[in-house]
Amino acid sequence: MSKEFFLNNEKKEEQFSVELSLFLQELNFDSQGLIPAIAQQYDTKQVLMMAWMNLESIQKTLESKQVCYWSRSRKKFWYKGEESGNIQYLKEMAVDCDGDAILLSVDQIGAACHTERAHCFYWKVDGDHCKLETKSCK
Amino acid sequence: MSKEFFLNNEKKEEQFSVELSLFLQELNFDSQGLIPAIAQQYDTKQVLMMAWMNLESIQKTLESKQVCYWSRSRKKFWYKGEESGNIQYLKEMAVDCDGDAILLSVDQIGAACHTERAHCFYWKVDGDHCKLETKSCK
Repeated sequence: MSKEFFLNNEKKEEQFSVELSLFLQELNFDSQGLIPAIAQQYDTKQVLMMAWMNLESIQKTLESKQVCYWSRSRKKFWYKGEESGNIQYLKEMAVDCDGDAILLSVDQIGAACHTERAHCFYWKVDGDHCKLETKSCK
Repeated sequence: MSKEFFLNNEKKEEQFSVELSLFLQELNFDSQGLIPAIAQQYDTKQVLMMAWMNLESIQKTLESKQVCYWSRSRKKFWYKGEESGNIQYLKEMAVDCDGDAILLSVDQIGAACHTERAHCFYWKVDGDHCKLETKSCK
């Protein structure tokens, strides 16, 4: 079981490593075979967006060094920026302590958000309201 | 429908706002009433962890200014740090463009990870292996 893998190895020494193909099989995908992936701009550290990956999209991302998500709405692979040109070049991929979330360090070309905003988290809670922080460039 | 709310309002002017109680009802919770929440240290911008919230845990977080998740394994509210003292003080809460992810800007007291590491994303893909980046302090 995947939970056991992460629990069993969390106290291993720094630099302890596992073969990638075996490691990926231990990830805690949900019942639909998906895992949430957070994209963070590698230099500014801005969190850009969150989307979903499956095993194959993770493999495509690692092979191509361009982030490939699984689109839940379109039910297909989605190389970020394949239509807009707003590609996410992969700098580093990390997995969390219980293997159920991925952190992608990326270099985002252009806007990360489909609204042409730099990032997707533009609704900000402000007291008893929630407001739009940044203007769409469209 | 929530998707429509976000789509209909994404091109509104900057500073456009919605009453919080109404806004929260538009969030795209999954079939279990949950939404993924990313915690980011407000000053260093380090992504600390990802966990899950439901409507009530969001409300508890906003009221107390201490981050409260919903523990899927224990099926109960989980004020981060309630046992360890490693509290997350809320600085800002943001929601993404389609209302299905939350970004929490926090001030993390102590370690974010249950392994006593500063953050949870310590498995790093490195070529054809995945390795432990940082040592547990336990």
